[in-house]
Amino acid sequence: MAQENKFVYTPSEAAEVGIHGPKDLPKLMDKAMSLALVPVSKFGVGVVGLTSKGEVYIGVNVELPGLPLHNSIHGEQFLVTNLALNSVEELTHIAVSATGSIFGAPCGHCRQFYQELGTPPAVKILIKKPEDGIDEFVSLESLMPERFGPDSLLPAGSPLLLAQRDNRLVLLDNSEEICSDREDCSHPKCKALAAANRSYAPYSKCPSGVALKCGDEVYRGWYIESVAYNPSLGPVQAALVDFVARSGGKKFEEITEAVLVEKKDVDVSQEAMAKIVLQKIAPGCVFKVLHCYDTKKPE
Amino acid sequence: MAQENKFVYTPSEAAEVGIHGPKDLPKLMDKAMSLALVPVSKFGVGVVGLTSKGEVYIGVNVELPGLPLHNSIHGEQFLVTNLALNSVEELTHIAVSATGSIFGAPCGHCRQFYQELGTPPAVKILIKKPEDGIDEFVSLESLMPERFGPDSLLPAGSPLLLAQRDNRLVLLDNSEEICSDREDCSHPKCKALAAANRSYAPYSKCPSGVALKCGDEVYRGWYIESVAYNPSLGPVQAALVDFVARSGGKKFEEITEAVLVEKKDVDVSQEAMAKIVLQKIAPGCVFKVLHCYDTKKPE
Ligand SMILES: [Zn+2]
Ligand SMILES: [Zn+2]
Repeated sequence: MAQENKFVYTPSEAAEVGIHGPKDLPKLMDKAMSLALVPVSKFGVGVVGLTSKGEVYIGVNVELPGLPLHNSIHGEQFLVTNLALNSVEELTHIAVSATGSIFGAPCGHCRQFYQELGTPPAVKILIKKPEDGIDEFVSLESLMPERFGPDSLLPAGSPLLLAQRDNRLVLLDNSEEICSDREDCSHPKCKALAAANRSYAPYSKCPSGVALKCGDEVYRGWYIESVAYNPSLGPVQAALVDFVARSGGKKFEEITEAVLVEKKDVDVSQEAMAKIVLQKIAPGCVFKVLHCYDTKKPE
Repeated sequence: MAQENKFVYTPSEAAEVGIHGPKDLPKLMDKAMSLALVPVSKFGVGVVGLTSKGEVYIGVNVELPGLPLHNSIHGEQFLVTNLALNSVEELTHIAVSATGSIFGAPCGHCRQFYQELGTPPAVKILIKKPEDGIDEFVSLESLMPERFGPDSLLPAGSPLLLAQRDNRLVLLDNSEEICSDREDCSHPKCKALAAANRSYAPYSKCPSGVALKCGDEVYRGWYIESVAYNPSLGPVQAALVDFVARSGGKKFEEITEAVLVEKKDVDVSQEAMAKIVLQKIAPGCVFKVLHCYDTKKPE
């Protein structure tokens, strides 16, 4: 992949660009900001994050013109979604900026979304204001006192956003042959089912996954829920994170095929919304919905 | 209106139910919580708010089954939207609860949405935890340190969410006769245009308004934008706030007609989303979109 579209750095790649610890995260900020997709606001936000294993991830905000603004993906959400898609289980530090010189706190929507990382979340956030001589990492807890988190609604010890999971979903329609509900098949329908099986939807219990085909490659993502409902990230958005992070700069309109897997007739259905998002960003895309059911015993 | 569906109390009505100041707001909490519409979560949240003129407003959370969760209206958003619809310019105190006994802080999404109330917002929030002996009002600022607010993107002194405004929108289609673009006509199209003229969309400059007809009454609301984009409240949701607050318990499915007024071919179009929301909540509703343009000089 072209260096300029790089969203993931191994520890040794991070070291090559000068990142040896949390304080070095700003070194990738100019690059991060340049990757933002902000046709509406023109206000690009970059996020650079460090995992517990020393990998560095980039997040950017992504806006989808022609649609209501809650379809936007904030940089902080992009980063965490990409962590989940890459099976990374722990984020330790982030740096967020829209200028490259001043580093600030996430917006309230993202502070809420990040509650799904722990009870309380352990991630530290860089606050850097050169004019005031401030340059320190603060806890997310300090930015969200009296937080509303997963522990308000889920049993203690419940697996959270970055935990590995298998929702054990199976397609309803027997005529749809599935090679594998894991990720080792590249059919869009198999990828979408595998994605739905990793979806984080502990509040509504309505997991879903989306696969997007572009050229020979299939991108996928899954619905990620927030205890506060509204900050939840839809499965199309999650798949767009995979697309932006791995397609090396392809355009959304080059997507030719999309598959959504979700349960039928549920309280939280993504179908209607997924359809209008895809119509706007990739008008030539063929959209298919497959329904699934849960083979887990009710708890 | 039946007392049990009352969302607005004049100062004297507030006194009659025992509310003489901020500390008394909890007295209406059980009633507020009973008005929540939460078919998805079953987790009703009540909000009781005091205005600078001594009026008391009730907010409740509203969930729309079958749709992605970002279509939900939080109780805090309901309350502020209803203030706007009633031309109230200042909210001073709120109390939020899901139990009736413990009063806590808004979620991050709402802390962000409330940034549109001021720079910084002046509203105080009740934190009451009887077991810990805590019973105090705290500032929204203390709950959202390092806030991202309107002052980050708008010129100093810009009118905010609760300021009076006139967007001076005019319908594009001359064949649509408008009796008045103010609120003194009860045709749905006239009401929707009047609503769009009061819409708060300083970031995208894509205001919009919705009118909903049910029986002989027309309800209306307007799009309210957040500097952080995603927490923005759609115009259908805003009109549903008017509907819930004033219809005395009518069901959404009794809505027979809906009109959306917005600009054509803009970055933030509500049309596609409004259509699917209305199809889910009021399948028999006839939906019409009218386009408008801006007669204000560009600044
Ligand atoms: Zn954010
Ligand atoms: Zn909230």
